[in-house]
Amino acid sequence: MANILKGAPAAAKINEETLNRAENLKKAGITPTLAILRVGEKPDDIYYESSAVKRASTVGVNALRVTLPADVSQSALLDKIRELNSDGTVHGVLILMPLPRHIDPHAVRNALAPEKDVDGITPGSMSGVYSGMSIGYAPCTAQSCVEILEHYGIPLCGKRVAVVGRSLVIGRPVSMLLMGKNATVTICHTKTENIPEITRNADIVVTATGKPKVFGESYFSAGQTVIDVGLNVGADGKMCGDVDFDAVEPIVENITPALGGVGAVTTAVLLSHTVQAAERKWRASNGREKIIL
Amino acid sequence: MANILKGAPAAAKINEETLNRAENLKKAGITPTLAILRVGEKPDDIYYESSAVKRASTVGVNALRVTLPADVSQSALLDKIRELNSDGTVHGVLILMPLPRHIDPHAVRNALAPEKDVDGITPGSMSGVYSGMSIGYAPCTAQSCVEILEHYGIPLCGKRVAVVGRSLVIGRPVSMLLMGKNATVTICHTKTENIPEITRNADIVVTATGKPKVFGESYFSAGQTVIDVGLNVGADGKMCGDVDFDAVEPIVENITPALGGVGAVTTAVLLSHTVQAAERKWRASNGREKIIL
Repeated sequence: MANILKGAPAAAKINEETLNRAENLKKAGITPTLAILRVGEKPDDIYYESSAVKRASTVGVNALRVTLPADVSQSALLDKIRELNSDGTVHGVLILMPLPRHIDPHAVRNALAPEKDVDGITPGSMSGVYSGMSIGYAPCTAQSCVEILEHYGIPLCGKRVAVVGRSLVIGRPVSMLLMGKNATVTICHTKTENIPEITRNADIVVTATGKPKVFGESYFSAGQTVIDVGLNVGADGKMCGDVDFDAVEPIVENITPALGGVGAVTTAVLLSHTVQAAERKWRASNGREKIIL
Repeated sequence: MANILKGAPAAAKINEETLNRAENLKKAGITPTLAILRVGEKPDDIYYESSAVKRASTVGVNALRVTLPADVSQSALLDKIRELNSDGTVHGVLILMPLPRHIDPHAVRNALAPEKDVDGITPGSMSGVYSGMSIGYAPCTAQSCVEILEHYGIPLCGKRVAVVGRSLVIGRPVSMLLMGKNATVTICHTKTENIPEITRNADIVVTATGKPKVFGESYFSAGQTVIDVGLNVGADGKMCGDVDFDAVEPIVENITPALGGVGAVTTAVLLSHTVQAAERKWRASNGREKIIL
């Protein structure tokens, strides 16, 4: 029987801190503000947006909905991003992804100001995550993995971590963040030979492949911590993780559930980044901190 | 008896290609040009600069020496970098490091245009190395490791690589470049527990710690390839690598020498990057390639 590492308690702790910091900013006349930029009317986007707006209001963050039609031209979208960049009342910008196919995602990544890039999509944020320097922000989902591990007191320094997946949204950034915590990280991917041998010998396994229940018993051993980032529709039509939870949970020491695990922390991280962005801007305007860009 | 992976043949191959490409550019009226920016008169810097200038002339690259006094102000140095950024006849800029202590290296990294950053020091280049996107260039020494492995036909896809060291100059970029070649990379560092167990189980070991001869027999096993990036002064006053070459060479299958190994390739990579930068600029000006910045 493993300990189930639910996301909600970690999120609650982050939200509590965010609220405190947002209240401090308000004393200085600043309302930390997140713009959520949505293109089109995808139900998933609208659902996420609504829940983020609701959550924001509980932690002292003002969330603005900025909506463009699905057939918006790329140049109009980039203009909107630049407008948000130069709007001094907006501290963070979340662009809901993926964008429609006629939009070049590189152009969007490059248009957003790194200091407002609270979900880590810009080259500036990437260089910050890679280098460990204070440039931009990490992608929220990747950072949520670290937040859960730290919330539950799982040791990271010197520990072996196997990350399966090398995407820019999760695999790469979570590898860099965990290395920043002094873990020894192995990054596995589609071309890796004998993944089960690598994961079985790790202290912590992070799965981020987007393939339902591919990680069964053979991938794990006693005493491990499993962070399952996947959220997939299984063969039975039900939501499931990359890990076959029912088979693996009896083996390992700690495991996140697919629902209510990592995903339950991402909005808290997003809002925390927004408050950080407002704090950095405020300190910079007071000459207290040099912003590295 | 291991195969000795000397750098010179790999460098010669790269130089041959660079010369061909430089000659093609000259037909279009373009002379690929590298500016080498040196602050002060450190003998090591002058030695490296002279050898790079000499080598450049043999591969059709024009190398300019740009020298500033050791006590140059930071703002004057940044002005010079901006001048080189906007000079259309300069395609690549190498800034000799480390800079004097009164200069903020972050400010320098941020001032250089990523498209001229042929030694991979800017945040733009870092984001490119990290993401695998075509932004800037990888640090030359890190890329030299990959060039040697490829030159000698060492398989990378699916192979296990242990990189020891996590610097921005070598450890991190070489890890990302080798992952880009579909190797499975483990990044080890000062907090890693039981490094010998990790390195012994790898197909390829890259050492980049700057500690003389710390990697002895216990770190290696038969059949491995060892890329030793270290160049240190040993206890006997002689130059040596991070690897105890005499002890390890009988065990492994392939090994670079400390002198004449990785270091012998870096200038070739630098000049190849300069020609690439000139090609990219030329293609962009002809509308043939979109430069992602």
